[in-house]
Amino acid sequence: MLKPDKLSLNIPDTTKPRVVIIGGGFGGINLARKLSEKHFQVVMFDRQNYHGFWPLLYQVATAGLEPDSIAEPLRKMFGSDDYGDFYFRLVKVTGINPDARTVDTLIGELPYDFLVVATGTKINYFGNDQIKKYAFPLKQIPHALNLRSQMLQAFEQANMTSDPEIRQSLMNFVIVGGGPTGVELAGALAEMKKHVLPTDYPGMDFTQMNIFLIEGMDRVLPPMSVEASEKTHKYLSELGIIIKLNTLVEAYDGEIVILKGGEQIKTNTLIWAAGVSGAVIGGLPEECVERGRYLVNEFNQVKGYDNIFAIGDVALMKTPEFPKGHPGVAQPAIQQGKLLAKNLKRLVLKQPLEPFKYFDKGSLAIIGRNRAVADLPNNIHLGGFFAWVIWLFVHIMYLIGFRNKLVVLSNWIYKFFTYENGTRLIIRPFIRKGDRVSQDFINKYNTD
Amino acid sequence: MLKPDKLSLNIPDTTKPRVVIIGGGFGGINLARKLSEKHFQVVMFDRQNYHGFWPLLYQVATAGLEPDSIAEPLRKMFGSDDYGDFYFRLVKVTGINPDARTVDTLIGELPYDFLVVATGTKINYFGNDQIKKYAFPLKQIPHALNLRSQMLQAFEQANMTSDPEIRQSLMNFVIVGGGPTGVELAGALAEMKKHVLPTDYPGMDFTQMNIFLIEGMDRVLPPMSVEASEKTHKYLSELGIIIKLNTLVEAYDGEIVILKGGEQIKTNTLIWAAGVSGAVIGGLPEECVERGRYLVNEFNQVKGYDNIFAIGDVALMKTPEFPKGHPGVAQPAIQQGKLLAKNLKRLVLKQPLEPFKYFDKGSLAIIGRNRAVADLPNNIHLGGFFAWVIWLFVHIMYLIGFRNKLVVLSNWIYKFFTYENGTRLIIRPFIRKGDRVSQDFINKYNTD
Repeated sequence: MLKPDKLSLNIPDTTKPRVVIIGGGFGGINLARKLSEKHFQVVMFDRQNYHGFWPLLYQVATAGLEPDSIAEPLRKMFGSDDYGDFYFRLVKVTGINPDARTVDTLIGELPYDFLVVATGTKINYFGNDQIKKYAFPLKQIPHALNLRSQMLQAFEQANMTSDPEIRQSLMNFVIVGGGPTGVELAGALAEMKKHVLPTDYPGMDFTQMNIFLIEGMDRVLPPMSVEASEKTHKYLSELGIIIKLNTLVEAYDGEIVILKGGEQIKTNTLIWAAGVSGAVIGGLPEECVERGRYLVNEFNQVKGYDNIFAIGDVALMKTPEFPKGHPGVAQPAIQQGKLLAKNLKRLVLKQPLEPFKYFDKGSLAIIGRNRAVADLPNNIHLGGFFAWVIWLFVHIMYLIGFRNKLVVLSNWIYKFFTYENGTRLIIRPFIRKGDRVSQDFINKYNTD
Repeated sequence: MLKPDKLSLNIPDTTKPRVVIIGGGFGGINLARKLSEKHFQVVMFDRQNYHGFWPLLYQVATAGLEPDSIAEPLRKMFGSDDYGDFYFRLVKVTGINPDARTVDTLIGELPYDFLVVATGTKINYFGNDQIKKYAFPLKQIPHALNLRSQMLQAFEQANMTSDPEIRQSLMNFVIVGGGPTGVELAGALAEMKKHVLPTDYPGMDFTQMNIFLIEGMDRVLPPMSVEASEKTHKYLSELGIIIKLNTLVEAYDGEIVILKGGEQIKTNTLIWAAGVSGAVIGGLPEECVERGRYLVNEFNQVKGYDNIFAIGDVALMKTPEFPKGHPGVAQPAIQQGKLLAKNLKRLVLKQPLEPFKYFDKGSLAIIGRNRAVADLPNNIHLGGFFAWVIWLFVHIMYLIGFRNKLVVLSNWIYKFFTYENGTRLIIRPFIRKGDRVSQDFINKYNTD
């Protein structure tokens, strides 16, 4: 790899106004797709070269999908000639200089006319470095591969110990956070426990396998309706998942989880799905940021600026309907991205801007085979098989790329009929510094 | 991860003779599948939990296939009830004690009645530690992901430099070794150069991209027929690949390749496909090992032992037809594994053993779209489209698992009609100690 000092951004000069988009998530790609190349030069920065369909990441972690099926290369999305004046750069943005109207990156600075921050979120460990060190996050594809390997490895090792206490802590899985990620992961794990693992490990007693779901609030899926929460709670319990509400995690040293109140759970695998905060970038004054997100007006303009915008999870738009901002899901990001494309054009044409109105298409969560919950507009709440079908349909529809749709669909059909999670491979490529791994483990995976 | 001292093998005692198989490759799985559970208890050790279909690994490296499509979990293959007395253990075997009739592993020793070494090969750097440190190998799934990321990263960076010399060394790819891996990788890279990369990187001039194929002997594909070599050479040249025969690599420091004779090539990416040696295990006397492989008789018995066997690439069976041993491909391993299953049964039934006769089904190599070469029995040599169709058919046929066949086939169909390599994702999970990576790179990939 080259040192940054040998690289430069190489963006051609232009007479058109330059729109710099930081982030290729749901907000960023929907903005870039709709931006008129006639009026703008578009530059997109991201630290990955792909757009990830994160609602399905938990299926990579539970061996249901290949890592590549849920992502699409950004250059593939914007490679065609419809995006003539579009430039993608795989580099980290380190700061914003609103006065100079430039962004800093690791390989130099770039002037912008319009800046759009679409960086999404980063994991929030609430300042607990010990948990950050030992917990398994689930936010990026490498996380999912790492978690998948960790879980499968735990079963392999549970199979190789005669010490009941060690076996139990290998077969305890503690998921912290009862939001969509935690719930869907718990459900998928429970399905594996029922259908896949007993065949894979004939000698083992899977009644010993415990899946804990720990939520700080008084119900699972707090962002969804009470009806959805209750149905979900019921489904999870039927799947044998141990749910602990109003419960916070105080500490985890890689072996023992200590809950607020003192209860302890022995586990080698603590999955952290407890929260995120906006991935804000340094450089803008403090008053622009509230609870880790950029304060924006109804045009997604960051407080105090008319040419700096924030969209999606990193934006905090307070409205009468959403005094605490919009839900941290794909739809607000998608809709804000599309609207901003129009509004940027209006800006250069000196036309009045259109304020953002969130169109709630409803929200969904899948708990397991034939089980899902749906909050639809007009207060319609569905559960069970019908919601499950809607979930499948919506996720295939929104999945990026013809190829991904095809591969994911064929995997799901295969899985439905065979009860198999096809990709149960332990692929934990190379050792991360500070990983809790034994020499045995390194020998096993860092071979030539 | 647990320390080895907390684990034990946990293999139940048995009155049946115990067959210990080291390695779940082509030899190991074909032996285990055919071994009569009525007569034996079977224990398989491997350091991966999956069987890899390595002939397609280069397609993972060139973004044609998902990493999971070319592998099948060993527990899935042997999970069914037909394998009642079968035990898989994910652990490294560290030694053999022929006198005590035990194998040592990182978590304890295990007595065997029959031992089968089916460990295959390891990469041979011919003692050059500098090359070992800086070259990119292509032997395991993590290698393929790492190489894929390296190559895509190189294009991203070539796009971000105005220094022509730096760009050139980023766009030079040096493949060392003109065997099947090197040839097929070179061909796939050339196809990407033609069909995928120019669309992905509109601003860039891909006439600058050079693919070097360096072979020490006087023709490419030395294991195949002269006819196949000549056709392959022609195809590779037509694809613009720079072939250097009778050429050895002397040194590589991560930036400059020095060839024997002094010629130098600047490159950030040197791919090492130059050779392998048998993955022998310590414990057997020296006279059993020749050129890094176990000397075996026609029953695959290791020299001097009647209950220790070696099959596949780690075995060296000298016959009049193959004085230097059989070719290092899947077929000899598969056939030796199947025969050994029969012979082990004959051993316990005190029946005479059947000697190994290699049935050469021919060999194939694919150079690119519509281009392949085939050496078939009876001295039939094919090339071009027809050989290409045979290649596709054979590889789908031999591919493990219904699911893998389905996924790979759909990927190939997609690729054939769209000219797209679907999975161009840079997924270089976590940093390996000693990786030549900049802080920029670490920031980019080791995020939370």
